[in-house]
Amino acid sequence: MSGNSFGKLFTLTTFGESHGPALGAVVDGCPPGLALSEEDLQFDLDRRKPGQSRYTTQRREADQVRILSGVFEGKTTGTPIGLLIENTDQRSKDYSKIKDQFRPAHADYTYHHKYGVRDYRGGGRSSARETAMRVAAGAIAKKYLRERYGIEVRGYLSQLGPIAIESVDWDQISENPFFCPDATKVAEMETYMQALAKEGNSVGAKISVVASGVQPGLGEPIFDRLDADIAHALMSINAVKGVEIGAGFDSVAQKGTEHRDELTPEGFTSNNAGGILGGISSGQDIVAHLALKPTSSLRVPGRSIDVQGEPVEVITTGRHDPCVGIRATPIAEAMLALVLMDHSLRHRAQNADVRVDTPVIPAQS
Amino acid sequence: MSGNSFGKLFTLTTFGESHGPALGAVVDGCPPGLALSEEDLQFDLDRRKPGQSRYTTQRREADQVRILSGVFEGKTTGTPIGLLIENTDQRSKDYSKIKDQFRPAHADYTYHHKYGVRDYRGGGRSSARETAMRVAAGAIAKKYLRERYGIEVRGYLSQLGPIAIESVDWDQISENPFFCPDATKVAEMETYMQALAKEGNSVGAKISVVASGVQPGLGEPIFDRLDADIAHALMSINAVKGVEIGAGFDSVAQKGTEHRDELTPEGFTSNNAGGILGGISSGQDIVAHLALKPTSSLRVPGRSIDVQGEPVEVITTGRHDPCVGIRATPIAEAMLALVLMDHSLRHRAQNADVRVDTPVIPAQS
Amino acid sequence: MSGNSFGKLFTLTTFGESHGPALGAVVDGCPPGLALSEEDLQFDLDRRKPGQSRYTTQRREADQVRILSGVFEGKTTGTPIGLLIENTDQRSKDYSKIKDQFRPAHADYTYHHKYGVRDYRGGGRSSARETAMRVAAGAIAKKYLRERYGIEVRGYLSQLGPIAIESVDWDQISENPFFCPDATKVAEMETYMQALAKEGNSVGAKISVVASGVQPGLGEPIFDRLDADIAHALMSINAVKGVEIGAGFDSVAQKGTEHRDELTPEGFTSNNAGGILGGISSGQDIVAHLALKPTSSLRVPGRSIDVQGEPVEVITTGRHDPCVGIRATPIAEAMLALVLMDHSLRHRAQNADVRVDTPVIPAQS
Amino acid sequence: MSGNSFGKLFTLTTFGESHGPALGAVVDGCPPGLALSEEDLQFDLDRRKPGQSRYTTQRREADQVRILSGVFEGKTTGTPIGLLIENTDQRSKDYSKIKDQFRPAHADYTYHHKYGVRDYRGGGRSSARETAMRVAAGAIAKKYLRERYGIEVRGYLSQLGPIAIESVDWDQISENPFFCPDATKVAEMETYMQALAKEGNSVGAKISVVASGVQPGLGEPIFDRLDADIAHALMSINAVKGVEIGAGFDSVAQKGTEHRDELTPEGFTSNNAGGILGGISSGQDIVAHLALKPTSSLRVPGRSIDVQGEPVEVITTGRHDPCVGIRATPIAEAMLALVLMDHSLRHRAQNADVRVDTPVIPAQS
Repeated sequence: MSGNSFGKLFTLTTFGESHGPALGAVVDGCPPGLALSEEDLQFDLDRRKPGQSRYTTQRREADQVRILSGVFEGKTTGTPIGLLIENTDQRSKDYSKIKDQFRPAHADYTYHHKYGVRDYRGGGRSSARETAMRVAAGAIAKKYLRERYGIEVRGYLSQLGPIAIESVDWDQISENPFFCPDATKVAEMETYMQALAKEGNSVGAKISVVASGVQPGLGEPIFDRLDADIAHALMSINAVKGVEIGAGFDSVAQKGTEHRDELTPEGFTSNNAGGILGGISSGQDIVAHLALKPTSSLRVPGRSIDVQGEPVEVITTGRHDPCVGIRATPIAEAMLALVLMDHSLRHRAQNADVRVDTPVIPAQS
Repeated sequence: MSGNSFGKLFTLTTFGESHGPALGAVVDGCPPGLALSEEDLQFDLDRRKPGQSRYTTQRREADQVRILSGVFEGKTTGTPIGLLIENTDQRSKDYSKIKDQFRPAHADYTYHHKYGVRDYRGGGRSSARETAMRVAAGAIAKKYLRERYGIEVRGYLSQLGPIAIESVDWDQISENPFFCPDATKVAEMETYMQALAKEGNSVGAKISVVASGVQPGLGEPIFDRLDADIAHALMSINAVKGVEIGAGFDSVAQKGTEHRDELTPEGFTSNNAGGILGGISSGQDIVAHLALKPTSSLRVPGRSIDVQGEPVEVITTGRHDPCVGIRATPIAEAMLALVLMDHSLRHRAQNADVRVDTPVIPAQS
Repeated sequence: MSGNSFGKLFTLTTFGESHGPALGAVVDGCPPGLALSEEDLQFDLDRRKPGQSRYTTQRREADQVRILSGVFEGKTTGTPIGLLIENTDQRSKDYSKIKDQFRPAHADYTYHHKYGVRDYRGGGRSSARETAMRVAAGAIAKKYLRERYGIEVRGYLSQLGPIAIESVDWDQISENPFFCPDATKVAEMETYMQALAKEGNSVGAKISVVASGVQPGLGEPIFDRLDADIAHALMSINAVKGVEIGAGFDSVAQKGTEHRDELTPEGFTSNNAGGILGGISSGQDIVAHLALKPTSSLRVPGRSIDVQGEPVEVITTGRHDPCVGIRATPIAEAMLALVLMDHSLRHRAQNADVRVDTPVIPAQS
Repeated sequence: MSGNSFGKLFTLTTFGESHGPALGAVVDGCPPGLALSEEDLQFDLDRRKPGQSRYTTQRREADQVRILSGVFEGKTTGTPIGLLIENTDQRSKDYSKIKDQFRPAHADYTYHHKYGVRDYRGGGRSSARETAMRVAAGAIAKKYLRERYGIEVRGYLSQLGPIAIESVDWDQISENPFFCPDATKVAEMETYMQALAKEGNSVGAKISVVASGVQPGLGEPIFDRLDADIAHALMSINAVKGVEIGAGFDSVAQKGTEHRDELTPEGFTSNNAGGILGGISSGQDIVAHLALKPTSSLRVPGRSIDVQGEPVEVITTGRHDPCVGIRATPIAEAMLALVLMDHSLRHRAQNADVRVDTPVIPAQS
């Protein structure tokens, strides 16, 4: 396919199937001299890994990552970083039933038609299990961005099915299994998820990611605009159906006087732009939202066809997340970090000599 | 910047500023043997070009395109196609006032900080004038897709500020200056735009694009998924702040049983997926929506700073579209066509040998 | 560095250091449906692996490759193929002496200045050990090219130091440790190598690679010409200092009437072009030659400097090939196969519809 | 084809045919702030342009280049630079005779088979006329390298057919029509070329290019090594059949003690490496040689076939260079400059933070 690499200067290439022996990745383009250990990667991997609560898949994977190259005496050397996670808890026989069937809303049908062959065990390559490697690579980017530029990339669940958050308290996010920043909504979410599990159904979610501390200047118009690359990155995550920057779809009904973020020496007066103007970071927080569809593997029977084109009723009994959005926060953070890392390197390649006297105004007044 | 190319096998590279001598492009990777003339490109260019109605900028540009290479005796030769449009109606002195000021919500501030220098005349490279070349290149892709694969790419305005359409009649789109497919809304839009012009204000819009006749199989997971590349393409258009595929942000509140498009031998029962599953086309119509923010150049004064960082009041008096969304339909069509063209070539490169017996089910039951 | 990927549609990305835990690679873009097992890769890996004769390094590596993804039920699935070889016979302490010294003609000095840090054990990333992964990936390309197109890629040693071959008997190549196709030269080579070993010195070599059965049409002018990509591929092999296509440097003194390969219905009358005209394959055998410099790690003392810039005398006592050219034949074959594979996919992407009535003339009359 | 772009961060994309209306190019990735005018490009264009002496083609082209974008008030802005040269002296009817024939050693046969259609007028896209755009873009790179890094890229003719130079006097190169640095050989070359013209024959040549002032560190192993990218660049020039770095093919017969360039605090003791070790610049002069085959368009009749596959006798009567090598020096310089420019940007992207205490030793002792 040759579509398994992301980034131009800081490049992530991944491989591996849900029920194969291992997942792996190569991170190419990491500057030398960054202190890096497996623990640095494990933190985010543990945030994403399955089986952490009753609201995610019960598959048990340690998701223990090994660094196979590119680090010497505790520091990156500038050579490619090889990463490996062994799969340990496959139950491939769960999937023999759907071997010849296409789950509605799943990649089964399209992989079958594209490749003529598919690894049906756990979704094969189309499984969200692949995102573990994005999280591992994203952790490298996050660390570099933090240490070199003071950029912080964070995210949260902003809506779970019908339940939208009403406030953001960054300290709450790690206190509940939903990455929910609004403590007042957690109980409601728990109740909702329990009812959903009983039903054998699934639901969608909305995630928000924010990068703060970003200097003005990142982004390479006109096609490799920062917002375009963020949209690419976030839409490449399994189950994502929509991406917004800043005010997003609210911009449609806004007037110019309402949308525009005015500039004052004390800061911007608002952030409808989501930190990006003309495809280039403005120095405000970069804010993006993504919509995730409900999981397609359901216990509720659905109509479909089999490989002969005959109608069948499909029921999925493997272990699945009833809401893929719940574990998506660290993945979205990782993808945003990868984009910012790549653009930080690209920016300094071409604009290393630029000196600007105009003061950078604060993110927000 | 080296971010001015789009596509991997069917590649568009553009150059040119709003008030420079010309806009140009290179389309590389077009298969040989396609009948192609300047008229084929002019049709969509004329749909996009300014000054067509009182609701768009009054700048008068013929936008007459010349093909400088890659076509011999009326057919493409497989060599790169050079395109050129001369600028004829620049009024650069309109911009001398904002030379040292940053218009709120405009790329002025970010270009200044990124490059240390900016061509302030008409927005320079950040102007939407650049999209003329996307439309010209998109017309080549559209023609190839239509003739070789029977794929049709079309679009329409689905919302203008607060006015949302309620139905889609493809025949209406060319009958009004808004690309509006709902005849019952046109008068309302006209009234709205006239009031807006009087105010000196601007407004956002929502555009929808649809590709029909797409075979299953286009898209290269996991990063070069079809939806990810569409998101990149659409978000790279000036003023776009959000992109949705199919149900988009509505997916957030949907349950799995509601969202999933069931498969029957007679067709899919719905199209929440927007024609893409697992990052690969399913054979259903590909449907995407994009949110465009209101134009940032306003006659209503706004607060900003100048290059010394001092507070100023900014008023823009050049010729501008009060709603950039009005002319955005052909641009969005062009970008979708470019993505589909690129993925059609990529797909046949790698899957030329695939033979699948399973029948392709119809787009919709 | 982000320079560790090769190919546009059939892409090889490698990682791993000489004395790290493992070498790995991702092969992305392999078409689905190719029967593939670890044995298919092992054959060429065994031809390249160290310790096969007294004329190569005595490091003992099984070079046993594992396929971690991309193959299901014995066939490629079109998803990325992850490959891994564990390192087993590192003796890193051999290198402590040169930790702070730069071996003349070695990458020590340049890696030090580029990255500010280097893994000195066995040359780290700059070691030719990395080429094992090229050979593994090349074996996949070779198999596809053979089965799908009838293309055969083969190579031989054409000169060892001062000893040039005088004839090519393809059956002889596997009968001696030098990949020498001229049986009459083998004894001379053995004697030469023994004397060299006694001296503690090293010597250069010349390798030739040939692809037969290539259809006309591969190559994407004007920059991604087939010959340009072959030059890139072969020059990227450690120690290579020169690349020729066909008559190569002999072309300099040739007249046009002498150089040109005339076309007759029975075939081309000669092959000075080396099978490539205008950057595109002509249907003749593709022939390339490469010059490899002598190994830089010598027991004969040499002058150099240390990391403080002070003069030192360097002696290298690790295990090294006295002539890196001896094991280079399978590596050169692999690189040529990777280029042809990539261009086969690229060609069919863009020229799938081309129908030509002109008969393809035979490779040689 | 989508093979008409070169470079990763400093990217050149070209278009145009020998007898089309114009040649054009886009240079993307040029840092902002470089003073640049059309005169800066014209100097090298004039060195390459045809009709400068009786030893090159008599086609008269002014090769006057226009800068269409990317420069504002005399300085680059960081946006893509569009370049255009109109063709003025086409005589397409000269070529009607060879419309259905394939000139031996020419791209006629391979373009025909690849694309099914070819612009036979003056060789169309396969003509060396395309190299004008490389020279224009190379002039931008040369200027930046000189002003920012003190790098100087120069070249000369080192052999014309059988006549090899014996010494290099940089001041002589502009004093004769051959770019010959050895004044004692010029008369011999003139006599040789006159005899060749009488014969209606052509001859090969060897060109050498040198970059001095290059800092250590350029090059991105293991595939985007500096030498590999130089090989790609030089082999992509029309008619080139071989590329050497430093000692090149002489390395084959060298022993390690002979080849290695020892390091002393006063400098390297020799330069067999041609300034590149492990794929990375060492700080010595970068030295490359290229072999150009004789022109394939001859007045001496040759055997070939026509588009029906029937045998024909081919005579070419258009205006051609009897030795393409004569005008190749500025082209080779341009390609080397493009590679160094691209790698300078890549290097600072990833190694901006590297600080090395070890002194850089002088280029040569």
